[in-house]
Amino acid sequence: MSGKIEQRIAELGLELPAALQIPPGVDVPLVMLKISGRRVIVSGHGPQETDGSIAQPLGQVGTELTLEQGIEAARKTALTMVGTLQRELGDLDRIQSWVKVLGMVNSAPGFNQQTPVINGFSNQIIEIFGRECGMAARSAIGVAQLPFSIPVEVEAELELVE
Amino acid sequence: MSGKIEQRIAELGLELPAALQIPPGVDVPLVMLKISGRRVIVSGHGPQETDGSIAQPLGQVGTELTLEQGIEAARKTALTMVGTLQRELGDLDRIQSWVKVLGMVNSAPGFNQQTPVINGFSNQIIEIFGRECGMAARSAIGVAQLPFSIPVEVEAELELVE
Amino acid sequence: MSGKIEQRIAELGLELPAALQIPPGVDVPLVMLKISGRRVIVSGHGPQETDGSIAQPLGQVGTELTLEQGIEAARKTALTMVGTLQRELGDLDRIQSWVKVLGMVNSAPGFNQQTPVINGFSNQIIEIFGRECGMAARSAIGVAQLPFSIPVEVEAELELVE
Repeated sequence: MSGKIEQRIAELGLELPAALQIPPGVDVPLVMLKISGRRVIVSGHGPQETDGSIAQPLGQVGTELTLEQGIEAARKTALTMVGTLQRELGDLDRIQSWVKVLGMVNSAPGFNQQTPVINGFSNQIIEIFGRECGMAARSAIGVAQLPFSIPVEVEAELELVE
Repeated sequence: MSGKIEQRIAELGLELPAALQIPPGVDVPLVMLKISGRRVIVSGHGPQETDGSIAQPLGQVGTELTLEQGIEAARKTALTMVGTLQRELGDLDRIQSWVKVLGMVNSAPGFNQQTPVINGFSNQIIEIFGRECGMAARSAIGVAQLPFSIPVEVEAELELVE
Repeated sequence: MSGKIEQRIAELGLELPAALQIPPGVDVPLVMLKISGRRVIVSGHGPQETDGSIAQPLGQVGTELTLEQGIEAARKTALTMVGTLQRELGDLDRIQSWVKVLGMVNSAPGFNQQTPVINGFSNQIIEIFGRECGMAARSAIGVAQLPFSIPVEVEAELELVE
């Protein structure tokens, strides 16, 4: 990794997770991202450990996870997604702008702190890419459940440099 | 405000809310909308009062809010979003088409009237922009919770005139 | 129907549902899809019978529906959406790529099998359109409720051939 963003990631002491270790017996008839012209449309990602396994703890934020654990799961989700982008685009300097983020929090009944949880994602992206590139249009919502009981799932759209 | 759409809003006796008064201590690392070519990608919006404060009542539609209160919250969400568009685009006549709407209703268990609730949003947009411009592709869904316990959140994509 | 994809659908013995029979008294201020250049943005669709009526059974996957019934509902949702595309585009061979799929499962508390449920949609699309065209960026999530208590709702974006 030698680009400016790759250097920034190294300076911050961050490590991008390996590709998702798909649990045995799970069929995934999808692509992690699709490129259409300058648009990059990214599948829903969750928190992963650096070896690509699904990160612990699993469950709903507000009961099984504390707010702080939810924020950390969202931060890890950002690194997971940047890892995918690095593998698929080859060079993260090709990214001009984070256009849109949809942040979904696996929410216990009554838990309404989706904004600070998804800020864990957004702030990690901004730390790496800077505010101009990293500040996206965004929605944060509380969902009833997520695959494998992951606490956070984020999908996004980005724009490449011309 | 002097364009055709601004005149229409005045004729209808509608008032666009001021920019969101962000509750104290809340970090919002995002933009309200992002423009890419002719595309306008709009963050999730909720119902606001005309002074920009988050509108009451808060909570889940089907228990804390009646269906009618949910519809009214969705209608107010439309005005909130048009207010953002007015501030960011300068002139609402730049809007050619509402392309996509994702309407999310903070839904009590068993509440399945997401269609009429989100119609409150769509019908207000159509009243202002007309059917050809205002009829978008749309999904309406029931979510487990929303930030600040707002009853409705809507995100959208629009297209600008050439 | 005479195009390659239409022939493929016939060979597979599949039948595309008629347009949605909107339940009495329901207002639908939206379009089933919107075209912008080569982009096709498709509204949320649910499972339909071939006559266009909303398919049974209704309810949450994990309690009112089994996993297998959820998968079948997602498969029917794919056929519903292809039916819409056939009517609106005239010729399904105009589709170059399925770009993005958002699959929403009406999920009972604790039900976390959204991946296999939405695979019912994706695998049906891939069976018809092939892997290169049909493998999309995707998110699968569990929502609290859906309109009319349908078990699955899917929205999508596609790209047309030049």
